[in-house]
Amino acid sequence: MNGKAAKSGSVNHPAGSKSSLPHLEGMGRRERRAAETRLRLFRCALELFTERGFSNVTVEDITEAADVGKGTFFNYFDSKEHVLGVMAEIQIGKIREAVAQAETAAQSVRLVLRRLCQRLSEEPGRSPDMARTLISSFLASDRVRIHVDQHMATGRRGLARIIEIGQRSGEVDPALNCDHLALLFQQSALGTILVWSLHREPHLKTAMENTFHLFWRAIARPGAGKQS
Amino acid sequence: MNGKAAKSGSVNHPAGSKSSLPHLEGMGRRERRAAETRLRLFRCALELFTERGFSNVTVEDITEAADVGKGTFFNYFDSKEHVLGVMAEIQIGKIREAVAQAETAAQSVRLVLRRLCQRLSEEPGRSPDMARTLISSFLASDRVRIHVDQHMATGRRGLARIIEIGQRSGEVDPALNCDHLALLFQQSALGTILVWSLHREPHLKTAMENTFHLFWRAIARPGAGKQS
Repeated sequence: MNGKAAKSGSVNHPAGSKSSLPHLEGMGRRERRAAETRLRLFRCALELFTERGFSNVTVEDITEAADVGKGTFFNYFDSKEHVLGVMAEIQIGKIREAVAQAETAAQSVRLVLRRLCQRLSEEPGRSPDMARTLISSFLASDRVRIHVDQHMATGRRGLARIIEIGQRSGEVDPALNCDHLALLFQQSALGTILVWSLHREPHLKTAMENTFHLFWRAIARPGAGKQS
Repeated sequence: MNGKAAKSGSVNHPAGSKSSLPHLEGMGRRERRAAETRLRLFRCALELFTERGFSNVTVEDITEAADVGKGTFFNYFDSKEHVLGVMAEIQIGKIREAVAQAETAAQSVRLVLRRLCQRLSEEPGRSPDMARTLISSFLASDRVRIHVDQHMATGRRGLARIIEIGQRSGEVDPALNCDHLALLFQQSALGTILVWSLHREPHLKTAMENTFHLFWRAIARPGAGKQS
């Protein structure tokens, strides 16, 4: 297959939906096709994991469902576990977009963070079973754990940057440490997804909206931006 | 064995450490012994799950480690999955204690919640691997999920009660919905444990303390109780 295809260990080719990856449009035809195949493998894998459980799915099952040769899989991913990294990359893509929006200062940081919460709940919100599969796969082995942890650190850097911009603009309390807040944001968002995947109501979108409002109440500069 | 032993489907005999279950002292000798055996089975099971992974541990492995007959296990638990409910019961025991403290009004609700956060992190904080095992076991099957979800609903009722007391005493913003806040508290606490189990630093106690401070900043009545 395409030798240029990025393995999931690299974040050079984060493959998500086109809408979450605007730089996909800047790619050449070959690169774009590779990113699309990678995304197809990811989607087929996720569907199978949800259906049968992570440990009951083989690489062959995935390549059959995606209608590609088995060798193709290994052009894109080191292992079955690495497929899950794509979800992290999709989420990181959204955080990057939010950073760019905050940097242009066209919108308030409050609105940027609120929209980000909504966007981060899109993929996991498709089904509680899929969300459970994802989280338990993150926990399944040290290889995946380390991989996911690295992606989360990248995500935290972006979140800290957004919060820092909010502090400069006077929206966020400048007394707070933006790295700590970035970690707290991630904990809240992941905890929301986890509890929703167990409890299944309200809709993840609603749950995430409530999570955002609580977070914002905690970080807004006193007297500024507590409006709903 | 003891026919009175509670199956984990019931919450009549929540078996945790003595300190978290003061009503253990009110039990008869027989009941206390049963609760102790149940706790021993839980602790042995958890150690084995962490060592070998949940799915690689049999009921026989657990009863051997706990030095009891295999039949004994089923006096206490319907299945291997149900053993995990004990952790939920331990945590619910702590929430009940916190409710009682808040009701006596001897301490501020802020202090009650802060201490509760610390106590809730004690068991999962023993090892990131154990925390990962617990969370992924919660997600492993629908049987466990429903079981855990019921326990969490019980926990939320207690948390809502504490927050309601805080609203009456003037510490917590009365405009907020205490049931929503209870859910948000659970999400934050579980998210903190989840991210810590992946990231492994800072110490869970520190992470949970930060989570408490953020939560309190969000819920404190404006002008009241924002002191660290």
